[in-house]
Parts: sequence; structure tokens; C-alpha cells
Amino acid sequence: MVVKKAGSVAASAVTMAGASLTDMQMLLGPADGCPNFAMRKFTVHAGGHTPHHQHDYEHEVLVLAGQGVAKGPHGEQALGAGDVVYVPANQMHQFQNTGDGDLEFICLVPAKVHQPVSCS
Amino acid sequence: MVVKKAGSVAASAVTMAGASLTDMQMLLGPADGCPNFAMRKFTVHAGGHTPHHQHDYEHEVLVLAGQGVAKGPHGEQALGAGDVVYVPANQMHQFQNTGDGDLEFICLVPAKVHQPVSCS
Repeated sequence: MVVKKAGSVAASAVTMAGASLTDMQMLLGPADGCPNFAMRKFTVHAGGHTPHHQHDYEHEVLVLAGQGVAKGPHGEQALGAGDVVYVPANQMHQFQNTGDGDLEFICLVPAKVHQPVSCS
Repeated sequence: MVVKKAGSVAASAVTMAGASLTDMQMLLGPADGCPNFAMRKFTVHAGGHTPHHQHDYEHEVLVLAGQGVAKGPHGEQALGAGDVVYVPANQMHQFQNTGDGDLEFICLVPAKVHQPVSCS
């Protein structure tokens, strides 16, 4: 069993093209031995956003704090603490901070997203 | 894209043997089309606990509110909001509420846990 405080996990800026003012923490992932899915925490600072993109894996999101919108194929939906978002694979999406403080959410993905590419 | 409020999701009492004063909400699961993992929210009321048990799948947990302990093979560790827990498959574990209010946490599991048994 691994127990840790989310605040103790190192944050790194998201440098993916299209991201702005966004940090990520790997709360539970390959380094913890998680075999099937990874729990990341994102902090989107005021004025920031994640990339507007799509990929071949899904997101399961829970908003912890702040105000924002989830932009999807049918427009934008307001987000606040306690809101849950499911983004299916291959669907365009973006998370934008529309408030004055940080927008904080966890976002889970299949483990393959964070595993090294094998060279067999 | 699915967006919903966690508070809008129906809660049901956990009736598994060994559980006490615990409710579960399926925030994201098979009904939402989630293919790989399911996000559940547990509310353990004061004096309650989840079963002390083990199973062949892992847990990824984030504590949202309250006070409790995670009981594992090496004893108990205190839990509060913002704490993260990874329970590997086949490891004995239990979550106990040790506070006066509700202990609230999300707990993710592989999708197979909530999928119907196939009869092929």
C-alpha cells in the first residue's frame, strides 16, 4: 500500500503544444506500480488551458477546485468543484480556466500513456 | 463528452459483507461507456468502514474530505483530504472513518469489476 499527500508530489509544467499555464503532478502511476491506469492532477492557472486536441485514449476527470469550461465537440460546458467529465477516445477536448484562481482537477488515463515505449 | 455533477449521481448503500455505514456512487463507469476503469465515490459515515478484504484488482484512491485510516498489511495510516492511496491487487486493506463527519473518497478500479459476467 502506498499512501502519500498529493501536495508532496512534484509538479512539472505541461509543455505539450497548445497547453498554457498548466502544471501536472503524477499522483499514482508507473513509479507506484499501477498496472492499468494513472491518476494525474492538473493545475491550470488563471488564463490557462490544456491543449485542444484528441488522442486514442479516454479521460476520466473530477474537478477539485476553481472555475472553468470543458470544450467538446458540442460546445463548452461550465465546470466547478465536484463536476465529473468523461472524454471518450478520439474526441476533441480542452479544459480552460475561466476564473481568477487555479482550476484543479484529477484526470485519469490508461497506463499505456505513461509507460515507456517497448523496443522488442 | 459526459459532464455531470457528482452530487447528482444516485448513492446506494454498500451491502458487501464487512462494510458498515458506507454509501457508493458510480461517478463514471460502464453506463457512461468507460472502457478501462471506473470512478466510484465512497462516503463512509461516522463510525463506518469498508470491508477488511482483498481481491484480484487494485484501488487508486483520493481522499476528498474527512478523517480516517487506511489499514494495510503493515498497520494503519492516517488519511485526510488530499491524501492518495494505492492498494495493489491481492493486498488486505480497509478504510475506516475515525472522524465525526463523513469520510469521502474516490476509488478507481479496472472496468472488469463492474461489467456483467459474459456467458459466451
